[in-house]
Amino acid sequence: MKRIAAFALALAASSPALADEGMWTFDNFPSRKVGEKYGFTPDQKWLDDVRLSSARLANGCSASFVSPQGLVLTNHHCVHACVEQLSSAQQDLVEKGFLARRHEEEKRCPAMEVNQLLEIRDVTAEIAKATKGKTGKAYADALKAEQARLSKACATSENLRCDVVTLYAGGQYALYKYRRFQDVRLVFAPELDIAFFGGDPDNFTFPRYNLDMAFLRVWDGGKPARIDHWFAWADEGAKEGDLTFVSGHPGLTSRLLTVSELEFERDVVLPNRLFYLAEMRGMLTEFSSRGPEQKRIAKTDLFGVENAFKALRGRHEALLDEALFASKVAEEKRLRDWVAQDPERQKKYGDAWAQMDQAVERLRPIYEEYLYVEGPARGGSWGFRSQLFNHARTLVRAAAELQKPNEQRLPEYSDAALPALQARLFSEAPIYPELEERELAFSLTKLRERLGTDHPFVKKVLGKDAPETLARKLVQGSQLGDPAVRRKLFEGGSKAIAASNDPMIEMARRIDSDGRAIRSRYEADVESVERRAGEQIARARFEAWGKEVYPDATFTLRLSYGAVEGYEENGRRIHPITTIRGLYERATGEDPYELAPSWIEAKDRVDLDTPLNFVTTNDIIGGNSGSPVINRDAEIVGLIFDGNIQSLGGEYGFDPRVNRAVAVHGEGMLEALEKVYGADAILEELRRAKTEPAAK
Amino acid sequence: MKRIAAFALALAASSPALADEGMWTFDNFPSRKVGEKYGFTPDQKWLDDVRLSSARLANGCSASFVSPQGLVLTNHHCVHACVEQLSSAQQDLVEKGFLARRHEEEKRCPAMEVNQLLEIRDVTAEIAKATKGKTGKAYADALKAEQARLSKACATSENLRCDVVTLYAGGQYALYKYRRFQDVRLVFAPELDIAFFGGDPDNFTFPRYNLDMAFLRVWDGGKPARIDHWFAWADEGAKEGDLTFVSGHPGLTSRLLTVSELEFERDVVLPNRLFYLAEMRGMLTEFSSRGPEQKRIAKTDLFGVENAFKALRGRHEALLDEALFASKVAEEKRLRDWVAQDPERQKKYGDAWAQMDQAVERLRPIYEEYLYVEGPARGGSWGFRSQLFNHARTLVRAAAELQKPNEQRLPEYSDAALPALQARLFSEAPIYPELEERELAFSLTKLRERLGTDHPFVKKVLGKDAPETLARKLVQGSQLGDPAVRRKLFEGGSKAIAASNDPMIEMARRIDSDGRAIRSRYEADVESVERRAGEQIARARFEAWGKEVYPDATFTLRLSYGAVEGYEENGRRIHPITTIRGLYERATGEDPYELAPSWIEAKDRVDLDTPLNFVTTNDIIGGNSGSPVINRDAEIVGLIFDGNIQSLGGEYGFDPRVNRAVAVHGEGMLEALEKVYGADAILEELRRAKTEPAAK
Repeated sequence: MKRIAAFALALAASSPALADEGMWTFDNFPSRKVGEKYGFTPDQKWLDDVRLSSARLANGCSASFVSPQGLVLTNHHCVHACVEQLSSAQQDLVEKGFLARRHEEEKRCPAMEVNQLLEIRDVTAEIAKATKGKTGKAYADALKAEQARLSKACATSENLRCDVVTLYAGGQYALYKYRRFQDVRLVFAPELDIAFFGGDPDNFTFPRYNLDMAFLRVWDGGKPARIDHWFAWADEGAKEGDLTFVSGHPGLTSRLLTVSELEFERDVVLPNRLFYLAEMRGMLTEFSSRGPEQKRIAKTDLFGVENAFKALRGRHEALLDEALFASKVAEEKRLRDWVAQDPERQKKYGDAWAQMDQAVERLRPIYEEYLYVEGPARGGSWGFRSQLFNHARTLVRAAAELQKPNEQRLPEYSDAALPALQARLFSEAPIYPELEERELAFSLTKLRERLGTDHPFVKKVLGKDAPETLARKLVQGSQLGDPAVRRKLFEGGSKAIAASNDPMIEMARRIDSDGRAIRSRYEADVESVERRAGEQIARARFEAWGKEVYPDATFTLRLSYGAVEGYEENGRRIHPITTIRGLYERATGEDPYELAPSWIEAKDRVDLDTPLNFVTTNDIIGGNSGSPVINRDAEIVGLIFDGNIQSLGGEYGFDPRVNRAVAVHGEGMLEALEKVYGADAILEELRRAKTEPAAK
Repeated sequence: MKRIAAFALALAASSPALADEGMWTFDNFPSRKVGEKYGFTPDQKWLDDVRLSSARLANGCSASFVSPQGLVLTNHHCVHACVEQLSSAQQDLVEKGFLARRHEEEKRCPAMEVNQLLEIRDVTAEIAKATKGKTGKAYADALKAEQARLSKACATSENLRCDVVTLYAGGQYALYKYRRFQDVRLVFAPELDIAFFGGDPDNFTFPRYNLDMAFLRVWDGGKPARIDHWFAWADEGAKEGDLTFVSGHPGLTSRLLTVSELEFERDVVLPNRLFYLAEMRGMLTEFSSRGPEQKRIAKTDLFGVENAFKALRGRHEALLDEALFASKVAEEKRLRDWVAQDPERQKKYGDAWAQMDQAVERLRPIYEEYLYVEGPARGGSWGFRSQLFNHARTLVRAAAELQKPNEQRLPEYSDAALPALQARLFSEAPIYPELEERELAFSLTKLRERLGTDHPFVKKVLGKDAPETLARKLVQGSQLGDPAVRRKLFEGGSKAIAASNDPMIEMARRIDSDGRAIRSRYEADVESVERRAGEQIARARFEAWGKEVYPDATFTLRLSYGAVEGYEENGRRIHPITTIRGLYERATGEDPYELAPSWIEAKDRVDLDTPLNFVTTNDIIGGNSGSPVINRDAEIVGLIFDGNIQSLGGEYGFDPRVNRAVAVHGEGMLEALEKVYGADAILEELRRAKTEPAAK
């Protein structure tokens, strides 16, 4: 447990960041500090270019534009779902890979959207004005209404997306305006065997040997979209010691949580999720072993579950680390002591921590009920793990919500959110009833297990049915697998919903009020209290230390800086760069260490000394997948696809000695495209992009 | 979380026990205290009779003799494995139940042994003499040798079993001498649907409606064994407020652990086991859903995994309870303060806690390696969850160990342990290759995951194989499923083992030294240090508080006292007794709330007001399953089969307000035997047993 001690040394995010720590917003990047350490000081034009060349995949990944013809670089695992959706039992593109040799061969991803960040505007004052003096439900409603108003005023067309983003736990609000690309096509995806070489056992480890890359293209009006800002590909990839930047969308960190929130995370939230995921993993693994078709249809879910399990287990272990936890306690004490020193400060900020403790205590008794009945807006109910049910719930709620004025709706039904909602709802991606049934039965079983057979909600849902029986009835009886049926119900509004006898719609209708009730209670008693207390603490932090700190990640664009650098593990020095030679040496011929046929066949052609993967000290986290690694000339030298196991504690704090980002090397990608895949058109497009004059 | 506060109030086991707390040894039962509270003071004859009428199943359950013809009462879930082994795809006794109407119809359980405790002898002085002045490996070796010597000298025939039992964490050693019954036959087992009505969702809850009972019979020389001590069946079952005793074999409690041990349990041991079990549960559930045959062959394993998961999760939650943990910290401080008050005490006991902390710190870095390579002697390696592999390891080790003098062997190969080892090894119980393969593949995958692909042991085991491939090769290539093959290898000794090319034997041979190495390290660096420090602390406790305390459970016979009493849960009063009427009301017709056909058919005949299950304040834990609940006349009034969810924290401390034992009611059992099963012969035998004159 070497990393323990280091946590105690590293100062965490509530104090000014040290070393290469930090997921900085583009409007508060510490250019001077970078200049002092690395001799290169990014200016505003450089930052603007990088921002506009960066992209976000709406499914939770990062990406970048690499040509003026809309070519987008990201990870294979970010497009895995699309590749699977484009596959069939006859043609498995996950296994065989895919390469479009001409634009016409590019295949549209059924549920993919690319966003480009056009503008950031600070709206803290507007939000403060709208919520002034309010608490509890009134506060939550006012906040929601103002967010909806701001978003709607900004999203003036279908091609724009506007989010009010919470930064510094509510210390700052900003309006992020994105250009939306909704026609996204698959250009290149290698075989899963090489993209995810080493599979779950190697996931979150280093040395690594993955070609976890893919190319998409954004289209507009039936042809490749014209893009003004893109990254050129560096002739030489990253070398040991090189300065590197990562521009991407880290999803979520919890570095500013209070001690009581962290305790709840450690003792309740993470164990709950981990037990659920572990069991689901066993279920999906066994399901996959039934046959090749089951293996194919469960692959995306299984990958998601394994990845989440390993990541959360790493986080859990970080929180169980006494030294890390002690450093969190000490940090909080430092700020509270600073507040207590002055009666004025004490009056402004002093009760925030007690408020937070109270919110946690209110959450405790309703936590599992909230998860299993309603669940987080993004994740859905833990009791109904089913795409069909999620569609049903969306349809039932949309019918009710769309009758209300925009600012009174649940946020996911606001005008600004509607295009993304419709994209998901009308997606042509196939839904597999066999898998749906197993997952729904599983989650209904957990619902009964965790809330208890005698819980009124459980009785209401199950009646006299066993979970398996109910799952079968609901899945087999539902027509919602057909996107046309969903579209018709959506367009039919509340009348169509009320008249529907689709069993999924009936179920969603029947339990809608239960979900809304527990959600309201959660928002009023917990979320709004945490948010207000979080704002107070954030303002105290600003007052104490200014803006020399960065906000927790919130799936918004951030820039981190660092260098290509190895580290020590179990007393052994890990070199920061691997080569294609290492890949061939690690291959056993057995899954997950099996080489794709194309790589076996290409062995004599490729230069074995070409770098394949590398690590850097950039501070990243989940959501950064697909982020470009760029040099000081803003050229691509690599592609983030993972963090090492030590980086998982990065959720709570950054340990510069061992926390490393893991990336595919720029030279390895070019070597593979040329020698293994003969992807000449792509290579030619990348070459032309280097010289083509542009807005940049 | 109502039970939290209560823990803080309840004094735990290191101080004199309060309320009805305590799993007392028969040679230190607090009769006077019972008399003061309940007006009945058990005397020595009463205690001896109860001890000799009690029984232990070698598989980890409790039981009792209920007739002079060797009739044994225990739980259905304690004989589940036997019932399954006696079943076939054509004749599923688990589902249909079993009733022998004549002795000749009784079916021998392939791997069942019943023990009766004949004698307890204190051997603390002998052990102290043999280990005096020794530390580390020398201490462990001397302890092992003296235990082997004592056991062997005592076990003078095949029909005796002698164990040196550690009590008070090493504060006392005792030699327990048992009569062994190895010919054990199934007499009666109801259908699983009624035995385990409510299944996993109702497990560890109350109100309950289970007929979790079974009858066995011990045979001797080809006829029912003659038994001198047995419990008569009370005419009236237990009523609210009645004094009740439970005589049984609680498996393991951890009430005397130090704070550092408890922290390790909370943060490392329990999460590790729970993640493993959760995933295995998902796997087995999905495996079972493949078809009825898979469901049948996986039933025992799935039950075991679900039961362990729920029990351990309850324990984990208890340790995460801040109030409980604080009470543990306070207790330890009290004893340490008492020690520190006096220089003489400080010298004798003062360094024990630091020793214990050190042992935990030494365990931390090798913990998973120990589990996955070797595993606990009783549980086997976590990397090789396979009956075939366990047999192979036993054969390989037996061949080596049996060449050594008795006192130098690994304890599980000592002369005293050999009969039980052979019973397991030569058992006729079927082994199912399909299930073996899945479980072995699962555990090999976990081995690779937790130790890492690059760990030398993982490379040695897997070579170029994927876990699934290796599992297939080993299981499909092995002949060890045939008991005759195992017997031949055992009898052939080291020559036969060396010559065998059975792949399981080859694997066990190849990794034997790895297992032995990590085990030695564990024993020398951890176990022996903990044991010595544990002894010191236990002696300090004796000196401070005398023998007014009871030892942690160690699967040795204990007696607890209490009363039939309800409790409060979520502000609701739970009545302590349920009736057969409640069973019919709870039935939905769907698993696990499906009634067996015999109960549907008998509905008009049974008296619906007959008590079915009840709770008492007796202090019990896993291993007490199958224990008789008796009244002051030592008559059967019930049969322990579970504890409520609040009892799971009983691992670490007893909360008299809500910790309850759950039992089948004596009257409910008689009603079922008569009206549902027409088990006239058994009822007649029970009636006769009440009047038959005996040694008692």
